[in-house]
Amino acid sequence: MKVCKSTLIFSICALVAIQLCVGRVLASDVEQNVSSVVNQDNGQTLSSELSSLKDVQMYNRSIHIMAMLLVGFGFLMVFVKKYGRSAVTATYLLVSAAIPLYFLLSSLGVFGDSKSVEIEKLILAEFAAASLLICAGAVLGRLKMIQYLVLGVIFTACYMLNEWIVLGGGFGLLKSGFVDTGGSIVIHAFGAIFGLGIIIAMTTKKELNEPIESDAASDRFSMVGSMVLWLFWPSFCAALVTPEQVPHTAVNVVLALCGATIATYFSSIFFRKGKISIADMANATLAGGVAIGSTCDHASHPTAFVIGILSGVLSVFGFAVIQGRLQKATKSVDTCGVLNLHGWPGLMGGIAAVFVVNGIDKSVQFKGIGISILTAIVAGYITGKILSAFGRRNSSYIDTEEFADAEG
Amino acid sequence: MKVCKSTLIFSICALVAIQLCVGRVLASDVEQNVSSVVNQDNGQTLSSELSSLKDVQMYNRSIHIMAMLLVGFGFLMVFVKKYGRSAVTATYLLVSAAIPLYFLLSSLGVFGDSKSVEIEKLILAEFAAASLLICAGAVLGRLKMIQYLVLGVIFTACYMLNEWIVLGGGFGLLKSGFVDTGGSIVIHAFGAIFGLGIIIAMTTKKELNEPIESDAASDRFSMVGSMVLWLFWPSFCAALVTPEQVPHTAVNVVLALCGATIATYFSSIFFRKGKISIADMANATLAGGVAIGSTCDHASHPTAFVIGILSGVLSVFGFAVIQGRLQKATKSVDTCGVLNLHGWPGLMGGIAAVFVVNGIDKSVQFKGIGISILTAIVAGYITGKILSAFGRRNSSYIDTEEFADAEG
Amino acid sequence: MKVCKSTLIFSICALVAIQLCVGRVLASDVEQNVSSVVNQDNGQTLSSELSSLKDVQMYNRSIHIMAMLLVGFGFLMVFVKKYGRSAVTATYLLVSAAIPLYFLLSSLGVFGDSKSVEIEKLILAEFAAASLLICAGAVLGRLKMIQYLVLGVIFTACYMLNEWIVLGGGFGLLKSGFVDTGGSIVIHAFGAIFGLGIIIAMTTKKELNEPIESDAASDRFSMVGSMVLWLFWPSFCAALVTPEQVPHTAVNVVLALCGATIATYFSSIFFRKGKISIADMANATLAGGVAIGSTCDHASHPTAFVIGILSGVLSVFGFAVIQGRLQKATKSVDTCGVLNLHGWPGLMGGIAAVFVVNGIDKSVQFKGIGISILTAIVAGYITGKILSAFGRRNSSYIDTEEFADAEG
Repeated sequence: MKVCKSTLIFSICALVAIQLCVGRVLASDVEQNVSSVVNQDNGQTLSSELSSLKDVQMYNRSIHIMAMLLVGFGFLMVFVKKYGRSAVTATYLLVSAAIPLYFLLSSLGVFGDSKSVEIEKLILAEFAAASLLICAGAVLGRLKMIQYLVLGVIFTACYMLNEWIVLGGGFGLLKSGFVDTGGSIVIHAFGAIFGLGIIIAMTTKKELNEPIESDAASDRFSMVGSMVLWLFWPSFCAALVTPEQVPHTAVNVVLALCGATIATYFSSIFFRKGKISIADMANATLAGGVAIGSTCDHASHPTAFVIGILSGVLSVFGFAVIQGRLQKATKSVDTCGVLNLHGWPGLMGGIAAVFVVNGIDKSVQFKGIGISILTAIVAGYITGKILSAFGRRNSSYIDTEEFADAEG
Repeated sequence: MKVCKSTLIFSICALVAIQLCVGRVLASDVEQNVSSVVNQDNGQTLSSELSSLKDVQMYNRSIHIMAMLLVGFGFLMVFVKKYGRSAVTATYLLVSAAIPLYFLLSSLGVFGDSKSVEIEKLILAEFAAASLLICAGAVLGRLKMIQYLVLGVIFTACYMLNEWIVLGGGFGLLKSGFVDTGGSIVIHAFGAIFGLGIIIAMTTKKELNEPIESDAASDRFSMVGSMVLWLFWPSFCAALVTPEQVPHTAVNVVLALCGATIATYFSSIFFRKGKISIADMANATLAGGVAIGSTCDHASHPTAFVIGILSGVLSVFGFAVIQGRLQKATKSVDTCGVLNLHGWPGLMGGIAAVFVVNGIDKSVQFKGIGISILTAIVAGYITGKILSAFGRRNSSYIDTEEFADAEG
Repeated sequence: MKVCKSTLIFSICALVAIQLCVGRVLASDVEQNVSSVVNQDNGQTLSSELSSLKDVQMYNRSIHIMAMLLVGFGFLMVFVKKYGRSAVTATYLLVSAAIPLYFLLSSLGVFGDSKSVEIEKLILAEFAAASLLICAGAVLGRLKMIQYLVLGVIFTACYMLNEWIVLGGGFGLLKSGFVDTGGSIVIHAFGAIFGLGIIIAMTTKKELNEPIESDAASDRFSMVGSMVLWLFWPSFCAALVTPEQVPHTAVNVVLALCGATIATYFSSIFFRKGKISIADMANATLAGGVAIGSTCDHASHPTAFVIGILSGVLSVFGFAVIQGRLQKATKSVDTCGVLNLHGWPGLMGGIAAVFVVNGIDKSVQFKGIGISILTAIVAGYITGKILSAFGRRNSSYIDTEEFADAEG
């Protein structure tokens, strides 16, 4: 019996061991079966498959942003008389200069190591181009094509410097924690204030006295541009958020834009004494998108709507009241009124984050805003002086200067 | 031996038990391993990952629909002379009123409990805005901006009421089973017939005798609007279908639009006695999208093409023949001819479902159509009376009334 | 003891057997559990879920291509005076003829068995329509609407024949291995050379002496068309690549377009002696997209940028220098200059593949290019003769011929 018992114990042990081995083999078998279900034909793991699909979704948003850059900004600027051809040509050139340059400087690692994947880099480059186009709106009608190219090169480098300092920890100037998902500060306010710097340095006396003639026939093109910006704005703000955050971010942006649009209508009547300005309708309607940028993924829906309303009022107030006074004070002409659309609403959006985002580091937020303003105004002023070296104008640019067969 | 035997039996039982336990442990181990492959870094389950990706894809379609609302409907309506500014401004205001209001009423649960996720709610709100813009097309050129806002508020509430009754079982009036994926009835026909109600209540004698002057220079803007509607239409119809159904639905919509476009060309020559009307080409080409709505996910490709052809013929017939007669009969002016583009083809599409969809409940389908028509015409008529209280016109609206610097 | 031993051995064997069975049962249990995690509510397998999501992403790109076809090509062609209405109407008709016809011929299996899934077929049909619109650009302003329809039918069949031979192994003429992801050869060059064939057969003496009057007011519409083509071009080239390849392909296309845009600006000034031609800016900027087609998924970023630059120079050279000489040599008028935008840059792109793509079969590449050129020119010439039978013109087409209320 002893033998039997010990044999039994041994056999149990052996069996458990066998069982464990066989079980493990079977289990790994199962795992293989499962992972062969999970893995696709090309041997990829599931997670790389999903990540590819996410990249393609990001790609889709990058195309939406491109529509904003070309058709949106391009045609929003077409309203200046005798200037249609150069406005769209300048848009083409600025985008085509900024994007490859961003890729070049980024791959050279000039502003820190870039760890972005390819499609993120494209979106970041498009953000730079957006900021550049905003800046160009301030000097519209006063640069030759070659000057736009020079502006594009200098601006892109300065933009990347600020982006690096504020968001990438460049020079150790700012701790991480700056909240600006949709770029109210680093894209919109930065571009507008950079433009302000340029025009302070460049505006001639004659330009100050020459009103900008808007072209009635071009109003509708401006509206096409405005609407294209409006409708793709959710993709601009949600470009780099995670898939789970896309719906909430998108709805926030839409609500902010709706708020700004309604507010623009009433404000335009109020500040313009009875009649709606179509320029307000084309521009201030977009202030909601600018202002919701910083908090687009954090705000609640009602908050987003309120931010939109406030930004619309602020923007129309800017166009109707501030612009004239500022022009006198700074002796400079902001052709498209980019400060009113991107400047004040952008700053408002960046500051709103302090009240809206839970657990935000307020000092980082304010320091980040301050650094962006400072970099923009100084770099803009210097850029203005450099551009002046390429020729300063006495009278407004007209298409015939550089374009064949243009309207007289 | 007995002991041995019984021990053996016991040991076998024990081993099986152990084996079951160990196996279970191993198995759960495997499951954990697998799910750690399947789960992503942020601890989400695979199915929530996939559902996020689906939501982002829905988001993409919501952007396409927004392009239809603003650039599409906005510019399709620009053809009326001296009316460009107010048409696009009204579009902006209507969209910006309808979407937040839809979110508000939906979150208050006014029309039943809404179980829609965020992005579905955005699309449903856009559908309401689309129906509203269709309705506004009927009264284009006869409302002041503030009246559009009033219209927007009343219409959105009525639209949600009908949506709730027909698709959400509101008041228990209709069993589930109403087939209208792309909204032939609840969006297109509803909006057009609501517009008919308004104009019956509002059209003045003078308006009846004043022909609508179309503006030749605006033709191309209308065509931009038309083409934007055409090309994004597949996203409108496929907005809420499952990912698997998207390709078939999209191809059906494209084929229906192709059919309508070819049919429009021949019908326009036929009904107009030799010359093509560019207004037909801008409008009736879209009837295919309207009519395929109800059956876009059920129809076969050839059926979709045939529905498209029939709707194109019907729409041109509406513009060329019915419109004049109806105008006399009802003493009302349908500025954009929305009944011809959205009304008749919409009804045709809703009825087509009876022949196309297998296992459809015909009585539910016809009752749903009837309820929608009735709600639309009654609510429209009352709305027209309310709008009249805000001012009824003697002559057509011109931009200079409300817009600064507008063309005379 | 012997019994005990043998019993033990037996019992071990039995237990191992049981264990294997139970293990297998448990394992299959695990597999079921896992697959129930992996599978979604509707019983689909994970891989079919993922494949649906990929199809929807392809669908998104198909919508982008549709925007290029209608708004892009449609409005790029609007620049000819007194011809706006017929240009956009022709675009509508050509697209609406080509797509259903492609589906019909493909489902009939006329050109080999088509194994494409639904959404791929839609994209392939859109490619055919794109090539057709390119071809139509060559004869713009010289066909009646009905002739466009005839052209659409013949062209689509010829296009599918060439597609089948070059990419589908039709007639066994070409081994597989022809590299043309974004269609530099089979879409762009084919369409342009087909157009050349038509105009050689059709251009009348009077047309040769009548300059094409461009319409200054339409410039901006051309620019809308150009920009829409530019911005959606990445989706055109990446339409059928795998999700993993989309980002790299997209960035390549954007860089090539940027390169072409910058090059166009400098080349236009250089070849036009000082002044920029807005037609160059609207057209040659797109040459980068044409030329990168063949190698869009293989090229490195710098290579893509260089291909873009070269194609921009080549295209402007074509417009400014080659076009006039070719017109005299072939006694034919290429209205939109499609050879300069799609012809030469397309051929350049197809040849560039030989230098850029690793392991390419050069003889297959050159033979494929040769077959496409030959098919296009011969089929085009015959088509031109057929179209002439439907009426050959003495003077340029004006909208009033076929359109009601058109401008005189």
